Amino acid sequence: MTAEPPRSPQQRKEDTLARFATDVDAWVASADPSGNAYLLPLSFLWDGAAITVTTPEASRTARNLRSAGKARLGFGPTRDVVLVDGTVQEYSLETVPDELAGAFAEKLWDPRHDADRYAFFRITPQRIQAWREVNELPGRDLMRDGNWLC
Amino acid sequence: MTAEPPRSPQQRKEDTLARFATDVDAWVASADPSGNAYLLPLSFLWDGAAITVTTPEASRTARNLRSAGKARLGFGPTRDVVLVDGTVQEYSLETVPDELAGAFAEKLWDPRHDADRYAFFRITPQRIQAWREVNELPGRDLMRDGNWLC
Repeated sequence: MTAEPPRSPQQRKEDTLARFATDVDAWVASADPSGNAYLLPLSFLWDGAAITVTTPEASRTARNLRSAGKARLGFGPTRDVVLVDGTVQEYSLETVPDELAGAFAEKLWDPRHDADRYAFFRITPQRIQAWREVNELPGRDLMRDGNWLC
Repeated sequence: MTAEPPRSPQQRKEDTLARFATDVDAWVASADPSGNAYLLPLSFLWDGAAITVTTPEASRTARNLRSAGKARLGFGPTRDVVLVDGTVQEYSLETVPDELAGAFAEKLWDPRHDADRYAFFRITPQRIQAWREVNELPGRDLMRDGNWLC
């Protein structure tokens, strides 16, 4: 199972940033105030500092992200994961910065013109972890309290 | 994005059961009673009726699954997903049926002999959804209230 030697922290950070830049979808976990977990894959944009997803503003994910103010995201296949805990900033169609919505539309699609009313959720990582196999569990923390550890 | 025509409900069920039988890992979403979402990939066993994962009994996932009594699981890559909402039955090392622990050990590894004390969580699907691209969102429900729709 563990043919590859563990990557260095620097390599994991580089791989993580490459994944943020090129991957299309993330697993978005959220929960309501009663502790009901929800999970859905959503397309995302990485702008160099945060991850933005959009979803109809009345959807379950939107309601959860709004009430919790935070999210946990999973990236990559299960044997090459990046996990992010982040704080959530919500934007409506009226408040979303043009630059952010424009970059989202360029990478993915433009939710500003959908029949459903969408909200944008910009998630700023506070903690980032990355590992492939069991031998990479030590050293999996790449960011804590919003600061890269390397 | 949507080159393939949507699969029939029967085909989706067949693909879902094949994935349960052959995939190794699932994304396990859980939450604590305060609404803090958690997400982690865990290896799983499908026994024909339910999905079993194991995790140290003091871990965050274990505590969440125990208090919530339910979980939401994601399978597959984000463009070929299966999503499961299920009810959780917990077993300790002392109460886990030999047949279940043995089948888990045969597919994966044997948590009964780990230095950490593990718990087994057998998750019985109540709702199953499966889709690949946007054109498969209609008809994504394969199971409701524990009953296959086809």
